[in-house]
Amino acid sequence: MSSLLEQLQWRYATKKMDASKTVPQDKVDRIVEAARWAPSSSGLQPYELVVVSSADVRARIRAVANDQSQITDCSHLLVFAAWSNYTTERINHMFDLHVNARGGTNEGWENYRNMLLKSYPARDAQVNFEHAARQAYIGLGACLIAAASEQVDSTPMEGFQPAAVDEVLNLTARGLRSVALLPLGYRQSGQDWLEPLVKVRRPKNEFVTEVK
Amino acid sequence: MSSLLEQLQWRYATKKMDASKTVPQDKVDRIVEAARWAPSSSGLQPYELVVVSSADVRARIRAVANDQSQITDCSHLLVFAAWSNYTTERINHMFDLHVNARGGTNEGWENYRNMLLKSYPARDAQVNFEHAARQAYIGLGACLIAAASEQVDSTPMEGFQPAAVDEVLNLTARGLRSVALLPLGYRQSGQDWLEPLVKVRRPKNEFVTEVK
Repeated sequence: MSSLLEQLQWRYATKKMDASKTVPQDKVDRIVEAARWAPSSSGLQPYELVVVSSADVRARIRAVANDQSQITDCSHLLVFAAWSNYTTERINHMFDLHVNARGGTNEGWENYRNMLLKSYPARDAQVNFEHAARQAYIGLGACLIAAASEQVDSTPMEGFQPAAVDEVLNLTARGLRSVALLPLGYRQSGQDWLEPLVKVRRPKNEFVTEVK
Repeated sequence: MSSLLEQLQWRYATKKMDASKTVPQDKVDRIVEAARWAPSSSGLQPYELVVVSSADVRARIRAVANDQSQITDCSHLLVFAAWSNYTTERINHMFDLHVNARGGTNEGWENYRNMLLKSYPARDAQVNFEHAARQAYIGLGACLIAAASEQVDSTPMEGFQPAAVDEVLNLTARGLRSVALLPLGYRQSGQDWLEPLVKVRRPKNEFVTEVK
């Protein structure tokens, strides 16, 4: 297996995918698992993934996503959907999962639960959503690295109408808001304008400051 | 090298680090490079990393970060600092970097630059900051995976006073706002209450929906 840095340099925001190719299910499963095992603030995992393989549903999403061809040329479209708010029920569910999996609770854990129950649900919903969206982006990072590690192409996308995608996938009723798309597929080599271009990043001295 | 999923299951939010151990510089460099090579929206890389090895500065940060011991027991503290706003200068700088690295520009690229120049700087600064912060979390995801791939422990942290950390590191004057901390170090095995506990995640059927 290549190193993580080699994987990050291999991947690129694939613009033209080969619609004739399908990502094998075991690869899709491992890519999704990377998000599920990624960390999140207080372990709440405040987002879900929708994996859309339906061609019809992907076509409807493409129509509200700047007509980007990868959405229909990929084989699986991952939709990252953040919790629209933190609720008492959601927080308790995650804490209860921990208690059950760990065979009991303790005072520190219950104090932590109560601290979150007192602070999160009372906050502005938009503040909570933005916080949840950030956690989803950790998962997004994990999935695109997982895809590269599987030699699967992916294209992180924000260029879509979230409310329209929410409607196509009926996310609002589930307390979710779409925040990013990640088509999984295979580059159509030789037909993607971005493929041959050098990957550009700010030089390290413009990105990193050391405080020694 | 272990698989990505094995790395994600090996890592945990280390609560007690061994202050006598130092992460080798080549590992720190590769962990930081993972963020630099991670993707970001429109390739703008709207954040920076501050790598704090200074014990004095880490002590000052611990004092405004709920006294979390990992901040002083780690050897390197990564501070993820998002752009407080998108500006014309920042956008042009990144687009110019691409033009220079790729040996020229074209109409499509310049149209894209102008689209961002027209939309981003005119938006509310908080909206831009939240957008930048999400990108920083992709980098955070990349760094914590990179750390795990190097068998280095890390603890993603939001429990700190951002304005106070910004002051310690003089970030405001640089148009940056701290959004997350990531201490890098080594677990003090046997003295970390979290180490022996099972890692808990929602089951797959509560995290993933398939639309076939």
